[in-house]
Amino acid sequence: MSYSLRELAQRLNAVVVGDPEIEVTDIRSLDEATSGELSFLHNPKYVDQAVESDAGAILVADESLLPGRTLLVTPQPYLAMAQALELFRPVHRPSIGIHPTAVLEEDVDLAAGVSVGPYVIVGAGSKVGKNSVVGAGTVLGRDVRVGEDCWLHPRVVVEDGCRVGHRCILHSGVVIGSDGFGFATVDGVHHKIPQAGIVVIEDDVEIGANSCIDRATLGETRIGHGTKIDNLVQIAHNVVLGKGCLLAAGVGISGSTQIGDHVVFAGHSGTAGHLKIGDRVQVAGVSAAFKDVPADTVVAGVPARPLREWQRANASLFRIDKLRARVKQLEDKLEALCEEE
Amino acid sequence: MSYSLRELAQRLNAVVVGDPEIEVTDIRSLDEATSGELSFLHNPKYVDQAVESDAGAILVADESLLPGRTLLVTPQPYLAMAQALELFRPVHRPSIGIHPTAVLEEDVDLAAGVSVGPYVIVGAGSKVGKNSVVGAGTVLGRDVRVGEDCWLHPRVVVEDGCRVGHRCILHSGVVIGSDGFGFATVDGVHHKIPQAGIVVIEDDVEIGANSCIDRATLGETRIGHGTKIDNLVQIAHNVVLGKGCLLAAGVGISGSTQIGDHVVFAGHSGTAGHLKIGDRVQVAGVSAAFKDVPADTVVAGVPARPLREWQRANASLFRIDKLRARVKQLEDKLEALCEEE
Amino acid sequence: MSYSLRELAQRLNAVVVGDPEIEVTDIRSLDEATSGELSFLHNPKYVDQAVESDAGAILVADESLLPGRTLLVTPQPYLAMAQALELFRPVHRPSIGIHPTAVLEEDVDLAAGVSVGPYVIVGAGSKVGKNSVVGAGTVLGRDVRVGEDCWLHPRVVVEDGCRVGHRCILHSGVVIGSDGFGFATVDGVHHKIPQAGIVVIEDDVEIGANSCIDRATLGETRIGHGTKIDNLVQIAHNVVLGKGCLLAAGVGISGSTQIGDHVVFAGHSGTAGHLKIGDRVQVAGVSAAFKDVPADTVVAGVPARPLREWQRANASLFRIDKLRARVKQLEDKLEALCEEE
Repeated sequence: MSYSLRELAQRLNAVVVGDPEIEVTDIRSLDEATSGELSFLHNPKYVDQAVESDAGAILVADESLLPGRTLLVTPQPYLAMAQALELFRPVHRPSIGIHPTAVLEEDVDLAAGVSVGPYVIVGAGSKVGKNSVVGAGTVLGRDVRVGEDCWLHPRVVVEDGCRVGHRCILHSGVVIGSDGFGFATVDGVHHKIPQAGIVVIEDDVEIGANSCIDRATLGETRIGHGTKIDNLVQIAHNVVLGKGCLLAAGVGISGSTQIGDHVVFAGHSGTAGHLKIGDRVQVAGVSAAFKDVPADTVVAGVPARPLREWQRANASLFRIDKLRARVKQLEDKLEALCEEE
Repeated sequence: MSYSLRELAQRLNAVVVGDPEIEVTDIRSLDEATSGELSFLHNPKYVDQAVESDAGAILVADESLLPGRTLLVTPQPYLAMAQALELFRPVHRPSIGIHPTAVLEEDVDLAAGVSVGPYVIVGAGSKVGKNSVVGAGTVLGRDVRVGEDCWLHPRVVVEDGCRVGHRCILHSGVVIGSDGFGFATVDGVHHKIPQAGIVVIEDDVEIGANSCIDRATLGETRIGHGTKIDNLVQIAHNVVLGKGCLLAAGVGISGSTQIGDHVVFAGHSGTAGHLKIGDRVQVAGVSAAFKDVPADTVVAGVPARPLREWQRANASLFRIDKLRARVKQLEDKLEALCEEE
Repeated sequence: MSYSLRELAQRLNAVVVGDPEIEVTDIRSLDEATSGELSFLHNPKYVDQAVESDAGAILVADESLLPGRTLLVTPQPYLAMAQALELFRPVHRPSIGIHPTAVLEEDVDLAAGVSVGPYVIVGAGSKVGKNSVVGAGTVLGRDVRVGEDCWLHPRVVVEDGCRVGHRCILHSGVVIGSDGFGFATVDGVHHKIPQAGIVVIEDDVEIGANSCIDRATLGETRIGHGTKIDNLVQIAHNVVLGKGCLLAAGVGISGSTQIGDHVVFAGHSGTAGHLKIGDRVQVAGVSAAFKDVPADTVVAGVPARPLREWQRANASLFRIDKLRARVKQLEDKLEALCEEE
């Protein structure tokens, strides 16, 4: 595959700086791209690498960063890079059809264009929408719904009654609809609360490898439209996650917590249960909210506090020694003064 | 399915407040239940929701919280809710029998009433007790024991020689008996210590999705009777967990640590290795014990300290600025005093 | 199986203290070994247990710790224990051959001595080196490379194009080559960045149960030679992990971070993305590096600081009350002094 910069500029909504007839055959990272290849500068941390890169052309937002270079200038170089990747490196999609080893129970409804891999199991009454991929060894329980254009990677589990929207991606090892962690403890014995609810995953959601979304005790655990979840994330029963959220790896959201839209949880952060986290909240890495967080707040620490407050307190912690020295000096001076008198 | 409140009161060990002839057809959450349905009030945080709920009757411990409402009063409304769920929403159990695709190696012993799903693999010499469910795609190694009335969800792995008691629930993706993390490092090379022990899971244990229990180096890793473990929990080799413990999601217990009975680990907490954690200890969320914890202690922080101590220190941290201002004032006053003289 | 101490001394590079004709039939822990069995003392914490142990002989580095006992003295008792385990408890290896239920796509190349378990799936063009074990239900994608003498436990996934070196061990539930977590967010919509790179795992790497290694966006995510990774660890896209590193359970390494050789991450620790962590760095448990860490540094805390600094600050935190009392005393004295005047 080969594209001229002129062609790429059209497809990627970019402007060529330099010779538009230059042809590139692939997109690679700044340190790997050769003179016949495209690269990209997204994170300003890597400007020096871009300057030294052998790349034949570079996607960039601000042409003044790379004077004298052949560029494709676009306000969103990262998005353009994604589009270029789709051109140069189309993903291999498993071929359409039902592998003969797939076990389909009664009343299963698989739409046209579906790809069902080897050793897949689809429980009674379940439906998979058109053009969806169900990867090898995946298990769908009874009465499961999977929408159109989804991609379930190998070894996913979706338990009974759970619903996955359109264009969702579930990576390997994901478990949707495991029982919530609920017990009524009487005299030290933990009696299981049956988990009779479901999980609803709205459209355009992506869930990373080995992440778990528990089914609700009653009602639904819900993952909002366009929310993206990384690997090894835990979403407990009856959580409601809003639209367009980002949850990095290792995040844990405890039961019944309600999270607004466009909320960001950095790696290994989380919340206690039964909280309300407002729209556009950002929780710093390895931080945990123990109480409600109002909209548009950035919080950090355990328990989480507004970021500034936490940063100041954290810095103070490393200056206590100095404060202690000042107090000692005061004590000495005062003692000297008293003795003097 | 429909029950009168009179009938439910008998079955759930409750007392009717209001008309005992009222019939309810389901149990749902306070905001979802209609006038023909039962609901429950367990967490006082939701009293307002209960007052406004359309539910035809509400399970509650204290009738004074909901004056004028039709109630089922019981000292344990959460337990009664669990029992009501079993009445109204009986769980679908896979049908009894061995799926023809199951691979059973030599000398496998499956008791009466067992349900073995598609693509299950049972290694040589393994036994499954009566009425247990082995979900689709689950792999039992050689010489594994699974007791009676267990439920192994799809895609569980129990490695060679490990033993699971009666009435245990293992959720999807659970791995029992993976190798412990043990190396003898000589001149920078990490030589693997073979992990020759097993895992023993006592009766009435539940283990959440994608959690891992490592086999012992020698001897056993043991999970005590009635202990409940949430999703994505790590139990290292040679850990001994007591009876009736609760481990929330994301908890990690390092190697050879011994944990007493009725210990609670909140979300994302854990311990270092080779420790003793006493009976009834509670470890707060995102906290980690780096040394032994005596019985009946609540600890928090990293490293964990008694809760009160940690709370006071944490509060202090956010008042250091104020303390610094007082020291500055003292310095100024003292300087003024000295100059005066 | 039975060995005299004389024989064991030869095989384990040890010196007998006591009667070399004593025969032992197994190796067990200090509290379990009987007079006909060998045990070992590695961690000085267990000297008292060793003194009271019934073991017929004990592997130990320093004979003065256990006067009067029959010993096998060796500078590396833990390594010798590993070697003794291999003698007394040889691991059961699945028999060589391809299980008839394995699905092999076109152009699959399985070398001599390979063991491929039931319900394994090997994608087109993939190769497995000689004597490797591919456990039940494992899924290898297209164009995957697995080296010689590897052991993939049941239910591993290695996605398209990823490469595993020689003598690697992947435990159950491991996912190699899931998509990295990358989005270009425009007007609140998260557009997926295709993850077109691969994962390269060098020789002698071990990866624990349910751990995830994401494929690179472009280029490689790389795990260096001899690095050992515990359970439930997350390695993000484009991370480069050096040689001989140890990552304990629950660790998370964010995208594009470069980690040197012989780095140690204790349990539940991690780093932010795009960092450089030098050779031989040690990160304490539940700590997180938010910026680069120079070689040969031990760091702790969130954000991580040099260990000593963090320890002093942490200790200070619990003495602020005392400091506050001293300031109060100074204020009182100074006031008294002023009034006096």
